[in-house]
Amino acid sequence: MNSTAAVVSPAADAPQGKEQQAAGVGILLQISMLVLSFVLGHVLRRHRFYYLPEASASLLIGLLVGGLANISNTEANIRTWFNFHEEFFFLFLLPPIIFQSGFSLSPKPFFSNFGAIVTFAIFGTFIAAIVTGILVYLGGLTFLMYKLPFVECLMFGALISATDPVTVLSIFQELGTDVNLYALVFGESVLNDAMAISLYRTMSSVRSNTSSGQNFFLIIVQFLETFVGSMSSGVGVGFISALLFKYAALDIENLHNLESCLFVLFPYFSYMLAEGLGLSGIVSILFTGIVMKHYTYSNLSENSQRFASSFFHLISSLAETFVFIYMGFDIAMEEHSWSHIGFIFFSIIFIVIARAANVFSCAYLVNLVRPVNRKIPMKHQKALWYSGLRGAMAFALALQSVHELPEGHGKTIFSTTTAIVVLTVLLIGGSTGTMLERLEVVGDGHNNELLSYEEHHDGYVAPTYEEGASSESNLKTKLMEFHKTATSFTELDKNYLTPFFTSQTDDDDLDFGGSSHQSRRGGFYDL
Amino acid sequence: MNSTAAVVSPAADAPQGKEQQAAGVGILLQISMLVLSFVLGHVLRRHRFYYLPEASASLLIGLLVGGLANISNTEANIRTWFNFHEEFFFLFLLPPIIFQSGFSLSPKPFFSNFGAIVTFAIFGTFIAAIVTGILVYLGGLTFLMYKLPFVECLMFGALISATDPVTVLSIFQELGTDVNLYALVFGESVLNDAMAISLYRTMSSVRSNTSSGQNFFLIIVQFLETFVGSMSSGVGVGFISALLFKYAALDIENLHNLESCLFVLFPYFSYMLAEGLGLSGIVSILFTGIVMKHYTYSNLSENSQRFASSFFHLISSLAETFVFIYMGFDIAMEEHSWSHIGFIFFSIIFIVIARAANVFSCAYLVNLVRPVNRKIPMKHQKALWYSGLRGAMAFALALQSVHELPEGHGKTIFSTTTAIVVLTVLLIGGSTGTMLERLEVVGDGHNNELLSYEEHHDGYVAPTYEEGASSESNLKTKLMEFHKTATSFTELDKNYLTPFFTSQTDDDDLDFGGSSHQSRRGGFYDL
Repeated sequence: MNSTAAVVSPAADAPQGKEQQAAGVGILLQISMLVLSFVLGHVLRRHRFYYLPEASASLLIGLLVGGLANISNTEANIRTWFNFHEEFFFLFLLPPIIFQSGFSLSPKPFFSNFGAIVTFAIFGTFIAAIVTGILVYLGGLTFLMYKLPFVECLMFGALISATDPVTVLSIFQELGTDVNLYALVFGESVLNDAMAISLYRTMSSVRSNTSSGQNFFLIIVQFLETFVGSMSSGVGVGFISALLFKYAALDIENLHNLESCLFVLFPYFSYMLAEGLGLSGIVSILFTGIVMKHYTYSNLSENSQRFASSFFHLISSLAETFVFIYMGFDIAMEEHSWSHIGFIFFSIIFIVIARAANVFSCAYLVNLVRPVNRKIPMKHQKALWYSGLRGAMAFALALQSVHELPEGHGKTIFSTTTAIVVLTVLLIGGSTGTMLERLEVVGDGHNNELLSYEEHHDGYVAPTYEEGASSESNLKTKLMEFHKTATSFTELDKNYLTPFFTSQTDDDDLDFGGSSHQSRRGGFYDL
Repeated sequence: MNSTAAVVSPAADAPQGKEQQAAGVGILLQISMLVLSFVLGHVLRRHRFYYLPEASASLLIGLLVGGLANISNTEANIRTWFNFHEEFFFLFLLPPIIFQSGFSLSPKPFFSNFGAIVTFAIFGTFIAAIVTGILVYLGGLTFLMYKLPFVECLMFGALISATDPVTVLSIFQELGTDVNLYALVFGESVLNDAMAISLYRTMSSVRSNTSSGQNFFLIIVQFLETFVGSMSSGVGVGFISALLFKYAALDIENLHNLESCLFVLFPYFSYMLAEGLGLSGIVSILFTGIVMKHYTYSNLSENSQRFASSFFHLISSLAETFVFIYMGFDIAMEEHSWSHIGFIFFSIIFIVIARAANVFSCAYLVNLVRPVNRKIPMKHQKALWYSGLRGAMAFALALQSVHELPEGHGKTIFSTTTAIVVLTVLLIGGSTGTMLERLEVVGDGHNNELLSYEEHHDGYVAPTYEEGASSESNLKTKLMEFHKTATSFTELDKNYLTPFFTSQTDDDDLDFGGSSHQSRRGGFYDL
């Protein structure tokens, strides 16, 4: 380090070496922080100290190092060491995190709550984004906060609606909670990323084409293009991988390494294919993850299955921890202007309101069509509302907005998002245990609920009550149609997709993620 | 892609997206080439077509795509897509390859041939580098080839002396060859990388300080600083990791992911620590690999052991294949000036001579002290001489020399090195099978040899012959002292290091890499 400081003038022949040395020190620092985070997280977990989950610990380590760097006035040096390229974030850190969230989805609870999850993720996120956007715009109009144009408010609304469940879910798992609640929280947060990105991109392109007249129809088309296009490309790559592994017969010989190499390359292929087509790689890799887990995974040899699970878990843990450290570091290093404080304060209030609008209205709709014994209870709705942490996805989109929006606007959004991420992770993450206990959703026999649900699954039980105005029952009929679509998707999967894309032919192939889903995802305590 | 072409002028608001899209297409292309290489390699291997090993196939794919890109005149576009940063190469591709080569070293045959390997790798590489350097300098003086200053000739000699055994060894494995020959070729090529880097760096710093008077003593100190310093830091990190895993007791609980995360971070830590200290990260990570395999590995839980082996194997396969593809691509894209042809031609002749000087003189020295039944037979010497492919390491150092040397010189060295890599990989890689059969070293009972060797291992058998001039027996005495040092190192390891750094206490802990070494390293056919 001494020598780095000594060579201030760019020496003609050795800048390469010095640069490499600086990069080395930067990465060394990062690795040390990673190691520290893992160890600290482990120690806290071991002592059942749920007020500081691992993500919060990583954030705090980042904050601490960033603060120290600030005080010691080596800021510029550390910044170059940290050398955090946005490209690196989007091409290397985010894909594994998103893929893993799709890949770790347990098929059974996910598909049995498919209708509700899709309602929360698609319709609910839409509501949340619009509500947040409108409130922020109104806040600007009434001089409560920094004034942004309406489209930018909607962009902010979209990006801040992407929730990150990692902390909440790891605590859910450890305390043991209802399977359906778990599936709802997890499924919603996974899919709402896709929705938030698509909304954000649509709004972003609306903003840049603002001169050429905004056709509402075109906006819809653009949104569908991003969302459906990315989803299809992801699902397509997933299906191709399933067929490849089904017919290449790599599992009969000892081709473990070749199998793993190919399996590991597919998610990336999906991501890059979508990006290359101008679609959203994140949305694509998410669906590739879901499809690969559901179909391709079962075509692997047993060794490779074990390896692939561990591999993606490892990579995503590293990436996730790194992202949290970086966010903490960044918020400590940033130049804070006090004008942001008001924006941050009101934004937090608004996103709480927006999340309530999302969860309770969607739950109302879902409950309309669900039979009495399967309604989402109020305590689950509250837990779902509470679980709206913001994480890597919101951060990533805010990072993007800095480049896309005019100087001050992007910076405001970025600062606000970073602050919201830090606050929600620390506060909500730290209080989830207490919340779950208050709501009495801890450890109640989830297997019973799952079972009692299963009985009603295949044959849809008609609701035993008939009431409400005609408009409501009209809505209800439509919702029930949708519900039937979701159910028939499960049938389609069982009868056609699974036999076609996997080598298993027995009926219980869906079971591999069923009751054992707790050991399949998250935490350091699974295998 | 259409849209990429459409936006030629840098649009004010969307360059970020476009750049990301271009990067996406580039990486997509790279992934496709990777997949193609793996599949092609697999097919060739399956049909036992040894004339085109996997590395050669990857090289050819790179050459092909590069050639196509050249013809279709989209060169500039593809170049930006390919976006190959040197930093990426040094920080992300090279470390896993080098770590894996240390990590996959089977301790037993390596340590039993320790003296011979060190002789070939340290002394032999030194000879080879000096001989190549002098010959290239003489070639320049006699107008046979482009004239380089003497120090630069030595730099070229050093970098071109780093051999890459990956292709040869995978064929050795498949055909089944003598364990001791395998250990010699593998061990030498692993350690000679470290030697070549240290020599290269020393020469490089001699060159840049050429004004301040070259003190021979200082050069030696500098070399020792790089080599011994990097080695110590690598070994130190390895030992720390061994102690951590021994006492953290991560293997008793189900902490598989935490264990793996930490295990995976250590090599990187070692690499970056050395780089940060201004030492050689490559040398450091290599020794960390050897130490971690020998000590830390046995402190892991069984699951993590399996995972770690697969993980590093996977990562290094990907990196290695990618490096070969890139080298092929690069040589096809490069602007070739015909002045290099002469340099390439004579360089090849010179490195063949230098390798002969290395192998046969070192073998002579080794045979002086070895008992009659353990002498390195001539056919093994020939095989060792023949196995001197040049690969990623030489390429990486040549890439560095482009920045360090004056325009024309660095370019000449880089072109020559790339050409030598391609030629040796294609020619030597393709003919290794034939060579091994000609030399009759294929499939002779290697287990027997290992056993017969083992008998003489602990108690050193004095040579049964006494002849030669006094100077020769003087040399012999010294060599025998050295041989005893190597033997006593094995004792030290057995009695002190292994009990201290691992949790195993029984005597046969060295056995885990012994007879099963074939399944431990390389190829797609293990596990």
